Amino acid sequence: MDTVSFTPIGIIHSPFTEPKGMPIQSAGSRDIAGTIEIEPRYAEGLNDVEGFSHIILIYHFHRAKGHLLRVKPFLDDTLRGVFATRAPRRPNPIGLSVVRLTRVEGTTLYIEGVDIIDGTPLLDIKPYIPQFDDRRTDRIGWLSEKVGNVYDMKADERFK
Amino acid sequence: MDTVSFTPIGIIHSPFTEPKGMPIQSAGSRDIAGTIEIEPRYAEGLNDVEGFSHIILIYHFHRAKGHLLRVKPFLDDTLRGVFATRAPRRPNPIGLSVVRLTRVEGTTLYIEGVDIIDGTPLLDIKPYIPQFDDRRTDRIGWLSEKVGNVYDMKADERFK
Repeated sequence: MDTVSFTPIGIIHSPFTEPKGMPIQSAGSRDIAGTIEIEPRYAEGLNDVEGFSHIILIYHFHRAKGHLLRVKPFLDDTLRGVFATRAPRRPNPIGLSVVRLTRVEGTTLYIEGVDIIDGTPLLDIKPYIPQFDDRRTDRIGWLSEKVGNVYDMKADERFK
Repeated sequence: MDTVSFTPIGIIHSPFTEPKGMPIQSAGSRDIAGTIEIEPRYAEGLNDVEGFSHIILIYHFHRAKGHLLRVKPFLDDTLRGVFATRAPRRPNPIGLSVVRLTRVEGTTLYIEGVDIIDGTPLLDIKPYIPQFDDRRTDRIGWLSEKVGNVYDMKADERFK
């Protein structure tokens, strides 16, 4: 299939310079603040963004070294198909986080709830809209009994 | 900034061969069924996916012709910064939908709630996990008074 190429629209900054010790999901990193520096040429595209309390970040897992088809996720001891996990070593290493947007100053976005490594290339920002994005699930697979641990689990180096 | 290249992991099939008349969000397309054909070499990565009732699809808006920094979204009459909208003509034309997964047969996924055009290249699948992905919002910007219309609004050709 044809390759698709993207150029980052900005860079995400966070207190995390290494994967080890990071929260494994933004739901578990509420107090962690960061910033995003957007390329000045996209400034006009940021209009109206500050109206949203939460935004979806789509980014490149730039530190992931190749992909795996089965991974042992942080919340489990069993190998799982990579598409049933949020692990970074995916065939296309694309990350997704919902963060709180506290303010916008020029092309700098101030965010909270950051589970992203410093220097991560940002590919897209979308407004988070519960009416579009939230679903009532019947089942959450292997995570059913483990999902509560996301709030205090920290990463190790397995996906470095 | 360095370009990032991705190769699609599969193709999304839906009843929509043209943008016109499509639901504008998957929240407004509950009864629309589709399929995803995953590349056979990624079959192993699909293990455990069927355990999830909903999955997040990240895909290429392959029909978007160039980007705009301000767009008039389907739900509004005012130009908005593109990053405050879900319009396809983004600097990096990446789409995001949460769909219901009804079953997996080999490398075919059967899905419902499809707001995606037939033939769309799929970049990634992630399990949808409300505990990771849902947030309580304080504000949803320009959409505050319009979001209820998402359930019956259909697309026209503006982002073709």
